[in-house]
Amino acid sequence: MDIVLIGAGNLATRLGLRLQECEHRIVQVYSRTEKSARELAEKLSTDWTTHSADISPEGQLYLVSVSDKAVEPLLSGIQFGGGLVAHTAGSLSMDVLKPFATNHGVFYPLQTFSKSREVDFTQIPICVEASNSKSLDILRKLGNSISDDVREVDSTQRRQLHLSAVFVCNFVNHLYAIGEELLNEAEIGFDILKPLIAETAAKALEFSPKEVQTGPAIRFDRNVIDRHMEMLKEHPQWNNIYKLLSESIHQLHTK
Amino acid sequence: MDIVLIGAGNLATRLGLRLQECEHRIVQVYSRTEKSARELAEKLSTDWTTHSADISPEGQLYLVSVSDKAVEPLLSGIQFGGGLVAHTAGSLSMDVLKPFATNHGVFYPLQTFSKSREVDFTQIPICVEASNSKSLDILRKLGNSISDDVREVDSTQRRQLHLSAVFVCNFVNHLYAIGEELLNEAEIGFDILKPLIAETAAKALEFSPKEVQTGPAIRFDRNVIDRHMEMLKEHPQWNNIYKLLSESIHQLHTK
Repeated sequence: MDIVLIGAGNLATRLGLRLQECEHRIVQVYSRTEKSARELAEKLSTDWTTHSADISPEGQLYLVSVSDKAVEPLLSGIQFGGGLVAHTAGSLSMDVLKPFATNHGVFYPLQTFSKSREVDFTQIPICVEASNSKSLDILRKLGNSISDDVREVDSTQRRQLHLSAVFVCNFVNHLYAIGEELLNEAEIGFDILKPLIAETAAKALEFSPKEVQTGPAIRFDRNVIDRHMEMLKEHPQWNNIYKLLSESIHQLHTK
Repeated sequence: MDIVLIGAGNLATRLGLRLQECEHRIVQVYSRTEKSARELAEKLSTDWTTHSADISPEGQLYLVSVSDKAVEPLLSGIQFGGGLVAHTAGSLSMDVLKPFATNHGVFYPLQTFSKSREVDFTQIPICVEASNSKSLDILRKLGNSISDDVREVDSTQRRQLHLSAVFVCNFVNHLYAIGEELLNEAEIGFDILKPLIAETAAKALEFSPKEVQTGPAIRFDRNVIDRHMEMLKEHPQWNNIYKLLSESIHQLHTK
C-alpha cells in the first residue's frame, strides 16, 4: 500500500519503519519542522516536505500522527483526492476527519513509542474504525499486515482505552521517575529497583491488579504512611501524590 | 542454619519456602492467628505456635516479619537466648531490636510477595545490616545462600529505598487497578493493556524513566488533559490523581 505519513514523531517513526518492513511503500513524510521530516524521511529513504500544500496526492492512505489540536488546522490546507485519511490518536474522535475526506478512519496502535527503541509490533493491539466498510477493510488488512492483534474499537471505547493507557503507562512511568529521583537523593543506584519493577508488571500480566495489591496503604498502616509522608516534606507535590494514592488504594479495597 | 519464622504473611511464606529449598531448617513458625501459622507450618512441614511464650529457644536466627507496629509489643514477651534476631521490614530502623537481643540486624528482601506466586529469589536484592560484624557476616552468608544480590544498606538508606519501592510497586499496581476498572466500565477486557504495561516496565529496565516519559502531560496538551478530566468527573479521586500526576510530570520536565 502507498502511504503518506503526516507527522514524524515517536509514533510515526516506529510505525513508518514497521510499515516499510512489511512491504508497504512510504511515499512521503510531512512534518511542520524540517529536522523531524528530514530525519524520518532519511530513515525510510523517501521524500519529505514541510509544506502542507506539497503533500503528495498519490497516497492511497494518509496516516495523520500529529498532536490533537494540530489536526484540524493542518488538514484544512490539504487536498487528499480519493485517498483514505486515518489518524492514529487515542483520544480524538473519528468524526474530526469528516470535513476533509469522504473515506476516513482511525488506526490506533496501543503502545508507548520512542524514536530510539524498537518494539515488537506483532504484539501491539491495533484499534481500527472507519467511515464505511470498504475503508474499514483496508485498515483492518493494513493492521493484520503488521500485527497479530487487530480490533474494531469505536471512538467512545477508544477514548476510554486511551485514558486507561495514560494511567498504566504515562503515570506509571512517572512513578518510576519519582522512585529514581528519591534513590538519587540517597545515593543508591536505580538498578536495585529493577527486579521489583519487573515483578510488579509481571504480576499484572498474570493476575487482576486489584487482587494482588500489597504495601502499607492496603492495610492503611498509619505508622509507615506517616513516616513516609514526613520523609517527603521537602517534596510537597510527591507528598500529595503519596497521600492521594494511599487513600485511593484504601478506598478501592474497602468498597 | 536453624531458623524460627516470626510472622506468616506473604513475605514470611515465600522467604520460608526459599530458605528451606536452600537447605536451611525452619524450626518453627509463629503467627498471631492460628490459620496463618498452621498454613505456613504445613507448607514447611514444621512446628507452629500462636503463643509468643512458646517460641522455641533453639533458633540460631529469628526472622521477624510482622507489621511494623506489632514488633515491639510482640518481642518484649520473648526470650531469645543467644540467637540472632533480625527483622525483614523496609521502613523500620534496626535499633528497634536493640532492647530485645544483643545480636540483631535486618534482612530485607526488596520485592513484592504474594503467598500464591513464586518469585526468582536469585534476582532479589537482599539488604542486610547488623549490630556487629559477626551478625553481619551471618546475615550476609544467609543472603548469599538464597540470592545473587546481597548488599549492606543502613537504616537511613533502607527507609528511602522502601519509600521508592512504594512508588514503583504499590502505587504502580494501583494505577494498573484504576486502568482495569476504567476498562471494565467500557466493557473492554484488561488483556488489551498488557503489551503496554510490559513495554513501559521494559523501558524502565533499559533507560532512565525520566528520559523516556511520553503522553499528554509531558507536552501539557490541554485539549487531551481537559477531556480526560471531564471523563473522570464521576470518579473525583481518580480525577485528582490524574490532575496531580499530570502537573507533577510537567513540573519534573520543565525544571
